Amino acid sequence: MKEKVGICIIGMNGAVSSTAIVGLELLKKGMIEKNNLISEGFINKTNRTIVPESKSGDVVSIAESLDLCKLDDFVIQGWDVNQESVYESAINNGIIKRDLIDKVKDETIAMKPWKAFTVIRGVGAKEINVINESNFMEASDKIIENINHFREVNNLKNVMLVNLHPTEKWLNLGDIHSNLNLFEDALKNNHELINDSMVYAYSALKAGAGFIEFTPTISIQIPAISNLANEEKIPICGKDGKTGQTFLKVALAHAFRARQLRIEGWFSTNLLGNRDGETLANPENLDTKVKSKSEALSKIMGYDIDSHIVNINYYPPRGDNKEAWDNIDITGFCGENMQIKINFLCKDSILAAPMVIDLVRFMDYAMKNNEFGFQPWLSMFFKHPLHDEIDYSGLSFFEQERLLTDIILNGAN
Amino acid sequence: MKEKVGICIIGMNGAVSSTAIVGLELLKKGMIEKNNLISEGFINKTNRTIVPESKSGDVVSIAESLDLCKLDDFVIQGWDVNQESVYESAINNGIIKRDLIDKVKDETIAMKPWKAFTVIRGVGAKEINVINESNFMEASDKIIENINHFREVNNLKNVMLVNLHPTEKWLNLGDIHSNLNLFEDALKNNHELINDSMVYAYSALKAGAGFIEFTPTISIQIPAISNLANEEKIPICGKDGKTGQTFLKVALAHAFRARQLRIEGWFSTNLLGNRDGETLANPENLDTKVKSKSEALSKIMGYDIDSHIVNINYYPPRGDNKEAWDNIDITGFCGENMQIKINFLCKDSILAAPMVIDLVRFMDYAMKNNEFGFQPWLSMFFKHPLHDEIDYSGLSFFEQERLLTDIILNGAN
Amino acid sequence: MKEKVGICIIGMNGAVSSTAIVGLELLKKGMIEKNNLISEGFINKTNRTIVPESKSGDVVSIAESLDLCKLDDFVIQGWDVNQESVYESAINNGIIKRDLIDKVKDETIAMKPWKAFTVIRGVGAKEINVINESNFMEASDKIIENINHFREVNNLKNVMLVNLHPTEKWLNLGDIHSNLNLFEDALKNNHELINDSMVYAYSALKAGAGFIEFTPTISIQIPAISNLANEEKIPICGKDGKTGQTFLKVALAHAFRARQLRIEGWFSTNLLGNRDGETLANPENLDTKVKSKSEALSKIMGYDIDSHIVNINYYPPRGDNKEAWDNIDITGFCGENMQIKINFLCKDSILAAPMVIDLVRFMDYAMKNNEFGFQPWLSMFFKHPLHDEIDYSGLSFFEQERLLTDIILNGAN
Amino acid sequence: MKEKVGICIIGMNGAVSSTAIVGLELLKKGMIEKNNLISEGFINKTNRTIVPESKSGDVVSIAESLDLCKLDDFVIQGWDVNQESVYESAINNGIIKRDLIDKVKDETIAMKPWKAFTVIRGVGAKEINVINESNFMEASDKIIENINHFREVNNLKNVMLVNLHPTEKWLNLGDIHSNLNLFEDALKNNHELINDSMVYAYSALKAGAGFIEFTPTISIQIPAISNLANEEKIPICGKDGKTGQTFLKVALAHAFRARQLRIEGWFSTNLLGNRDGETLANPENLDTKVKSKSEALSKIMGYDIDSHIVNINYYPPRGDNKEAWDNIDITGFCGENMQIKINFLCKDSILAAPMVIDLVRFMDYAMKNNEFGFQPWLSMFFKHPLHDEIDYSGLSFFEQERLLTDIILNGAN
Repeated sequence: MKEKVGICIIGMNGAVSSTAIVGLELLKKGMIEKNNLISEGFINKTNRTIVPESKSGDVVSIAESLDLCKLDDFVIQGWDVNQESVYESAINNGIIKRDLIDKVKDETIAMKPWKAFTVIRGVGAKEINVINESNFMEASDKIIENINHFREVNNLKNVMLVNLHPTEKWLNLGDIHSNLNLFEDALKNNHELINDSMVYAYSALKAGAGFIEFTPTISIQIPAISNLANEEKIPICGKDGKTGQTFLKVALAHAFRARQLRIEGWFSTNLLGNRDGETLANPENLDTKVKSKSEALSKIMGYDIDSHIVNINYYPPRGDNKEAWDNIDITGFCGENMQIKINFLCKDSILAAPMVIDLVRFMDYAMKNNEFGFQPWLSMFFKHPLHDEIDYSGLSFFEQERLLTDIILNGAN
Repeated sequence: MKEKVGICIIGMNGAVSSTAIVGLELLKKGMIEKNNLISEGFINKTNRTIVPESKSGDVVSIAESLDLCKLDDFVIQGWDVNQESVYESAINNGIIKRDLIDKVKDETIAMKPWKAFTVIRGVGAKEINVINESNFMEASDKIIENINHFREVNNLKNVMLVNLHPTEKWLNLGDIHSNLNLFEDALKNNHELINDSMVYAYSALKAGAGFIEFTPTISIQIPAISNLANEEKIPICGKDGKTGQTFLKVALAHAFRARQLRIEGWFSTNLLGNRDGETLANPENLDTKVKSKSEALSKIMGYDIDSHIVNINYYPPRGDNKEAWDNIDITGFCGENMQIKINFLCKDSILAAPMVIDLVRFMDYAMKNNEFGFQPWLSMFFKHPLHDEIDYSGLSFFEQERLLTDIILNGAN
Repeated sequence: MKEKVGICIIGMNGAVSSTAIVGLELLKKGMIEKNNLISEGFINKTNRTIVPESKSGDVVSIAESLDLCKLDDFVIQGWDVNQESVYESAINNGIIKRDLIDKVKDETIAMKPWKAFTVIRGVGAKEINVINESNFMEASDKIIENINHFREVNNLKNVMLVNLHPTEKWLNLGDIHSNLNLFEDALKNNHELINDSMVYAYSALKAGAGFIEFTPTISIQIPAISNLANEEKIPICGKDGKTGQTFLKVALAHAFRARQLRIEGWFSTNLLGNRDGETLANPENLDTKVKSKSEALSKIMGYDIDSHIVNINYYPPRGDNKEAWDNIDITGFCGENMQIKINFLCKDSILAAPMVIDLVRFMDYAMKNNEFGFQPWLSMFFKHPLHDEIDYSGLSFFEQERLLTDIILNGAN
Repeated sequence: MKEKVGICIIGMNGAVSSTAIVGLELLKKGMIEKNNLISEGFINKTNRTIVPESKSGDVVSIAESLDLCKLDDFVIQGWDVNQESVYESAINNGIIKRDLIDKVKDETIAMKPWKAFTVIRGVGAKEINVINESNFMEASDKIIENINHFREVNNLKNVMLVNLHPTEKWLNLGDIHSNLNLFEDALKNNHELINDSMVYAYSALKAGAGFIEFTPTISIQIPAISNLANEEKIPICGKDGKTGQTFLKVALAHAFRARQLRIEGWFSTNLLGNRDGETLANPENLDTKVKSKSEALSKIMGYDIDSHIVNINYYPPRGDNKEAWDNIDITGFCGENMQIKINFLCKDSILAAPMVIDLVRFMDYAMKNNEFGFQPWLSMFFKHPLHDEIDYSGLSFFEQERLLTDIILNGAN
């Protein structure tokens, strides 16, 4: 019997989560196209690039090359402070069209989240679905118990946690993050430098589950956790899904670089109206996000760009329909200036959800092949790719694509 | 003694031409930065990508790798129906700042074009600087004489013709284009399917000079001429410099493809106020240009894009400061639609001029290394890269960059 | 008993028509806000401007001032070559949300169009619902019969025809348009300079019904028809509803004029994906529309604007969600140039439908008050306001608003 | 002998100041067009709107109607912490083209500022041109002395101070602002709630000079000063010149209101690279500016707009070429949403400078006609028009234009 793969989502009722879950159920039933998944794409063997269709003999299927798990093999569960079913949260989030959601009502109305862990209990009156243990370590035990029970009941070989929790506030690194002993003591003492995501990441590794950090929060990047992944031989990856504006930014940056057009300034502003936007209206959380969005550009270009500004605005009229506006000032021949302005009317969760599914499939491949620690070959999925020794953070989007296709083509041989 | 390299420009007083010539003289004197030339860039050996600066040990200089001719080694001359000096035309074109132009006044005031060939004599009253022979073959003899005399006087090893003539009207291919004998007969008979650019291209090859087709006009792509290049063992390349809007288009198309975002429609409109715009206000010439701008997208994506519209508008208020506006409709997960709009306020000649200089250097390298016929490794410079057997026309900008860097890194070893 | 008002729509199943009809039924049931109707607004008596709400004592209700007919008093019917019910066409047009349409299913499923007149019978296989008489005059008799029967059955005092037929091709004015006798002869002879809209307009006046020309087509502006309106003492108005791009254009033009900023050039491009767009993809029809969109600007500004370009593109991916992009070049102090770019993502039918309802109410007011011929006080609704002696075509949007409010405030006293 | 009019500029070497002064000298010599001045425009008597040219008999010249002072009658002087001549500052500010500046070199090289007053001495090492008195009252005496001496030497009838000082930080109103006695005590005690602009405004009134508040700073609006203007019978006006983004905003807001399109959200962001931008990078100063830019919209529309966001960013690559980007979300019929995006590439000083000249002429007219206190008929020039009893702050741009034209047409009769 084929073994199944488990996905445990932190923040199961959020916009990205419910879109990914409903989307996955729709995919299983063949009710939406699977051609937005990278893992369902092909690779042109000559150019080593991802292409949508298998038109000529010179391409290979990504899923076949890596013998990826089937979409049917996924089982999903998760945590949320909200008690709604996935069906209800999908409707409330208002991202996927209602008639599509209703096609998988039976599957999703039964999906209700486990009680969630949160360092600050009682964020809002509606949010009562919380783990209520006396310290963070006991909460972690509870999370581990959830994972193990989920694995057993569903006969899962591999389980992957995906962090889709709203962005948490920036934390400076301290001693307690530097090694496992200090970190475990800190868990027992409810230390103020511990956030929700660290507790989940620690629990995942302790339960033998992989961890995908899709948010900008500090979690798996602290040595206490990344070393644990190496010791436990478990793959981890992150961080901060490169969905929209930053995706275009690092693609265009490469284009300017290849044409020797110098970037004098880059101004990026965002309008967000969903819960993510509301969270980022808090300056402490915003700081975490802006840091994550700002770093790559200068590294890709190879010189400092002083006038790189990233703004994020909570703007309710638009809901999940995120909008990005960028202005780029470039200098060309004879010192002449030019400008490029980009307006991206995107749908955040629609961009993110298929990436979550792709990441779980690729991480499952890594787990099956005994890869562990950071997985920099998945850099194209992240704004801030985490790594061990070799720093891949200066790679452009196309160099990251190549990193992925090289692995797949080599893995395929 | 170091041998010099000759550049002969068709349309020497145009906006791109005068910018390239004045810019080259400024470069020779060190008065502007040379960091907008690809040929002065570096290649990151790990990623095989073009980078601006030599920051680490892992890069090689492009110019050094290929032992490119020095900027000081260039000698320039050309043809134009206008009698102005390059100094005057640079001022009239108004692209480079006046104080910069004045720094190379001595060098450029002496540069006056040869009499130009044109199938339609007397386009305008001011334009009296024309070759006045009784048939196209005799005109070609005159052009060959110009080239040979230029080579001798300046002790040039290699000479390259660069076509910067305004876009000519679209011509359907006929028998006379199919082989050299018929073509030479047609030259003698002033055949209506012969345009200016074909006469120059034929003359270049007869005089042993390389030919760079930087416009969208049909010239070197006709078999009569491309076969001649192979017989005479002379490199040719083209066509239609990929300066602004199409450059961004083929970069972004790759990005969408790699992320499996499907393009439903792409609307591109252009505002041009310079002589190029005026030429394109003529529907026959516009047709040539639009064909050249439209083809690549579907090939890169691997599927047909029905709603791909390319408009070009002659709009005098903006002069050489071309403006492009693009709207892209993409479809993502669950069939949801998103939009991207790009507004590029560019300076056409500022983008084109350094590409002309790069192309001459790379073509000189090809000539020195006995490469002949089409040079598809220079595809990243063209909207419509010409080729022999292997069709590279579906390559994205980044795949084209790789084609170039592979040649350079291999050439360097 | 309160007498009712009839609306007869030419092109009853089109996007604007079905939106207006479904919207009107929703308004009657109080299921949508009526605050997008100008006729439901207020006028600030000090500033003589339209304002949304009655917050202070200094405003008057427009509907009360003019004693406008109630929304409940409307009865709707129309012609279309398509046999669908309004319910079906509203769903197919996909403009109003399905759940809203379903709220007036009972009312709209019963509404089926009369057979339509068309000079070219059989445009498409689906369109079989056509008047099949031997000449245009007989067809007109049929239309008049429809109107009279509709009036009788519903006990209507006034009836108004609204032309929402797709844009027809441009026709040059000929003798047959100059007086009624020649025109009636031409009707009998199926003359080639007669279009559908003229036949409907003539029929309306003969049946004692008012006529609102909401399209750019030539109809009521021909002397044969406008004179008939004066003779029959019937109000007519038009033409071409000023819904989106032109509305913003004539508002901004006034702002630039008041600040003495000179317009050097104005480039307008449109993307349309609905049936209107498809019709305009035909160059003959496009010509009619572009003429209508281009004229006002120079008149408002008081000087010629050479570089005023208006493009319309049929671009299917967007459906009814029309998009306009404008670039404006202005010159200010010391001859310095500036640019303004406007991107309007609008919904054509959503903008047009409430204007149709407003126009019918205002025209009914005119009819009740024995106003006849052109109604220039309704200029703010039209791109190309028609008039008799006094030419109001150079009025800006704000001057047009004032024309309306002056009538209302004076009418109110 | 014709009496001359004096202009004293606070911040004489700033970008707007030097543009206004150089521009005025160029106007005197007829070297630039005067058609960007409202005061050189005409009024259409039928529509009571400002028009550029006198084409028909139905217009009146604004300058003639009010018998405005001639441009030749102006004499200019001012204060600045910087010692440069106006010629030098104009070149350094880089706004007007160098060849134009050179045409009035003789006139402007001699113009050097008086020592300036600043509550914080020694902002920067270069800025040494400061009044060095022991308290604010003594500094005021010094300013009054400057004004009186200037008036005498040049035989001036009226003098107007124009505040073009960089935006100062927001000050909450306190007791010391409430009446003249407390304010004068505070001046003597160097009170912390007094800013530079208050000291200048007080001094102007004491010296019998009018005061134009062109910045967003709190100055003439405090009762101590506005009452003094009434007592001394001197006209004052302000505040914050409505140059670019807000100008378009209040024009468009009126258009949406007249068409009953509801504004759901309005997001405005600005890129500024000049000294003004640098000043606003200080959050305390930014606060003053944002307050000034945010208020009008809800008042014009007549309802609260929760999602009205105004961002200002210091972005050096652009210099004085300010850029504004606005996104507007509107709701129309059936609750459907639409979006409008506006990108204004403006030149701040080019927009502001002619308004400064207009304001001085209109204020001189007021003074000659014994008007005093706030001048709300000049509202169209200000983001935040100041007033006494009647609150004109909810007027749209077009209502403000009408306020001006009514005064002029009535004054003309």
